[in-house]
Amino acid sequence: MITVAVDCMGGDVGVGVTLPACEAFLASHPQAHLLLVGQPEVLKKARPQLLNNVRCRVVPASEVVAMDDPIEVALRKKKDSSMRVAIQQVKDGAAQAAVSAGNTGALMAISRYLLKTLEGIDRPAIASQLPNARGGATTVLDLGANVDCTAEHLLQFAVMGSALVVAITGKPEPTVGLLNVGEEVIKGSDVIKKAGVLLRNAANTGDLNFFGNVEGDDIFKGSADIVVCDGFVGNVALKASEGLATMISGLIREAFSKNILTKMAAIIAYPVLSSFKKRVDHRRYNGAALLGLRGLVFKSHGSADAFAFEQALGRAYDAAHNGLLSSVQERIAHAAPLLSPAGVPSEIKSIPTL
Amino acid sequence: MITVAVDCMGGDVGVGVTLPACEAFLASHPQAHLLLVGQPEVLKKARPQLLNNVRCRVVPASEVVAMDDPIEVALRKKKDSSMRVAIQQVKDGAAQAAVSAGNTGALMAISRYLLKTLEGIDRPAIASQLPNARGGATTVLDLGANVDCTAEHLLQFAVMGSALVVAITGKPEPTVGLLNVGEEVIKGSDVIKKAGVLLRNAANTGDLNFFGNVEGDDIFKGSADIVVCDGFVGNVALKASEGLATMISGLIREAFSKNILTKMAAIIAYPVLSSFKKRVDHRRYNGAALLGLRGLVFKSHGSADAFAFEQALGRAYDAAHNGLLSSVQERIAHAAPLLSPAGVPSEIKSIPTL
Repeated sequence: MITVAVDCMGGDVGVGVTLPACEAFLASHPQAHLLLVGQPEVLKKARPQLLNNVRCRVVPASEVVAMDDPIEVALRKKKDSSMRVAIQQVKDGAAQAAVSAGNTGALMAISRYLLKTLEGIDRPAIASQLPNARGGATTVLDLGANVDCTAEHLLQFAVMGSALVVAITGKPEPTVGLLNVGEEVIKGSDVIKKAGVLLRNAANTGDLNFFGNVEGDDIFKGSADIVVCDGFVGNVALKASEGLATMISGLIREAFSKNILTKMAAIIAYPVLSSFKKRVDHRRYNGAALLGLRGLVFKSHGSADAFAFEQALGRAYDAAHNGLLSSVQERIAHAAPLLSPAGVPSEIKSIPTL
Repeated sequence: MITVAVDCMGGDVGVGVTLPACEAFLASHPQAHLLLVGQPEVLKKARPQLLNNVRCRVVPASEVVAMDDPIEVALRKKKDSSMRVAIQQVKDGAAQAAVSAGNTGALMAISRYLLKTLEGIDRPAIASQLPNARGGATTVLDLGANVDCTAEHLLQFAVMGSALVVAITGKPEPTVGLLNVGEEVIKGSDVIKKAGVLLRNAANTGDLNFFGNVEGDDIFKGSADIVVCDGFVGNVALKASEGLATMISGLIREAFSKNILTKMAAIIAYPVLSSFKKRVDHRRYNGAALLGLRGLVFKSHGSADAFAFEQALGRAYDAAHNGLLSSVQERIAHAAPLLSPAGVPSEIKSIPTL
C-alpha cells in the first residue's frame, strides 16, 4: 500500500487546487492512500465529502509556509507548517512520498533537514521533465538546488536521474547527456570536461548509459533521456523556455484575435490548435523530484491547477510504487568507487588546470 | 562613407547566400560600400552583375575556413582565408566592420589575434538579440565566447552591451539585467553576487542603467534591454530556446497536416500563422556582435539565408555608422575605475568566500 502525504495548504491557491486534485487522484488510483496535511477546519470547509473517503486521513498542521517566506522562517519558526508535517510523515514511515506546491527553497531546506541526504550524495538535486520533439519527455537536473557544482556532483545527478527515469517511465537503460556548449569532448569549462571523464567512466562500469555532450537544443530534440547540468544553468534554461513558450502562445492568441476575419480563422483552427496545445501542455509534466534524500519528496509548480497538481501526485505515487528510493540508493552505492578519490582514474588526474 | 568587408565564402552555403544578400543590402543602403572577400573566380561566376556595382570591390583570398576546421587550422594554416582577409580589412582601415557566417570559434580567434582587445577589456563577448513579448528585442551577452567569467567580466559585458544597444537601436539609457536564479540580491553564486554589487556601483556612477537581477523568462518578457551572463549559460539559454521554437513550429505544422480537415483549417489560418511567424522570425535578428575588439566584427548564423545575412550586414553597417567602436571605448574608459582593484568598493571586499 502506497500512502502519499500532501501539503494541502501550499502553493499559490492552496486547498482550492490541492483538494480537488486529491479527489481526482484517488479516483484514478484505487490502491492509493493520502494523508491530507493542513488546518483541519480549512480542509473540512473546502471539501467535506473528500474527508469521508476511507483512503484519506487528515493530519493536522497549524501553520502554513507562505510563498515568500524566507528559508529560515520556514525552517526555524514554522515548526508546525503543513509542508514540514507532510515531510515528517515520510520520515516517520507513515507515507512513502510527500508532495507540496509550496516555496521551493523552503521545501528543499526542510526536506534536507528532516530526511538528510543519502549516503554518497553531497547535495540533493531537483529533477523535472520537459516535453520533447520525439513525443516523450527529457528529464533535466539540477533545476536550481545547486548554483555551482563539481564534476562529482554532476555524476551523482546522472546516477540519480537514471534511477528516476527507470522508476517513472520503466525504460531500462535511459541515456544521459552532459549539457555543454558543444558536442566535442574538448568543449566547456574544466568542471564539465572532468564530468565528461567521470560519466564516460561510469558508462564503462555499467553505472549509466552515457550519450555524450549535448547542447541546449537537445533538451527539446530529445537526444538523450536525461540531461545533467548545474542548478544555475538548469534553472535559466527552464525559465527561458517557459518565457519563450508563454511569449509564443501570447503571440498566437494575439494574431488570431486581431479582427473579425482572424477570429473566424481561430474558430476553424481551434481543434487543431488545441490538439497542439495538449501536446506541449506543461501541466502534464508537473511534479519535480527532489532527489538524493532519504525519502521521496515531489515539488509541484506553485501556480499549478488541480489537473497539474494531480499529475504531481501521480508522479510521486509511481516513484514510490516503483521503488525509486531503493533504486537510487543501490545505484549510488554501486557507483561509489567512482566518487571516492581512490576510484578516480588516472585519466582524470592528468587533466590540466583543475 | 561606411565600408563593410564581407567574408563571401563563409557559412553553410557560401556565395549562394552571401552575394544575393550583398546585392539586396546595397540596394537598401545607398551610401554603403562593400569589400567582397573571397576567390575572385567563384565570386564572378556566382554573381557577375554584382561585381559591376561601383560600390563593390573584390578583395581576393585564396582559402576558405571550413565550418568544422579546428581553431588552430583556421588561425595558423589558412592565412589567406576569406575570413581572415575580411578582418584584416578592418585592421587596415579599409573597412569599418567585417561580417562572416563562418565558424564562430575561428572568427573569434582570428579577430582577437588580428584586432586585439580594447584597453580595459579582458575578454571579448558575443552579443545577439532575441525577440521579446514587448515587440522589441532583448540583447543577450555573452553567448558562448567565455565559458566561465568573473564578476568583472560581467561588468565589462554590461558596459559593452549598453554601448551596442545605444548604437543599434538609438535608445539612450538601455537597462541591464543580471541573469540569475532569482530576483533577490542574495540569490546566485558568489560570482553573480559580486557582479550585482559591481553593476549597482556602475549604476551609481552613471556608467549604466542597472535594472537588477533577472531570470531566464525575463529574456522573452523583455524586462530589461540587455541581459548579461557568462558564455556557458548564455549559450545554453540561446540553444534551448532555439530547440523549443523548432519543436513548437514542428508540432504546429504536424497538427495542421494531420488530415484533410486540418489541412483546410491550415489554409484558412495561413495568413494569421504567417503574420505570427513573421513576429518571431529569428532571421530578423541575425548578426551577433563580437564586442571588446579594436574593430567591429559581426557573426551571421552559419545556416543564414540571404534575407538573414542581409540583416547581419545591416546591423554591422548601423554599428559602424553610429560609432559603436568609439562608444564602447569611451564607456569602458569611463567605467575603468570600477574595474581596477582600487575602485572596488569596500562592500565587495566584505563578501565572504569569494
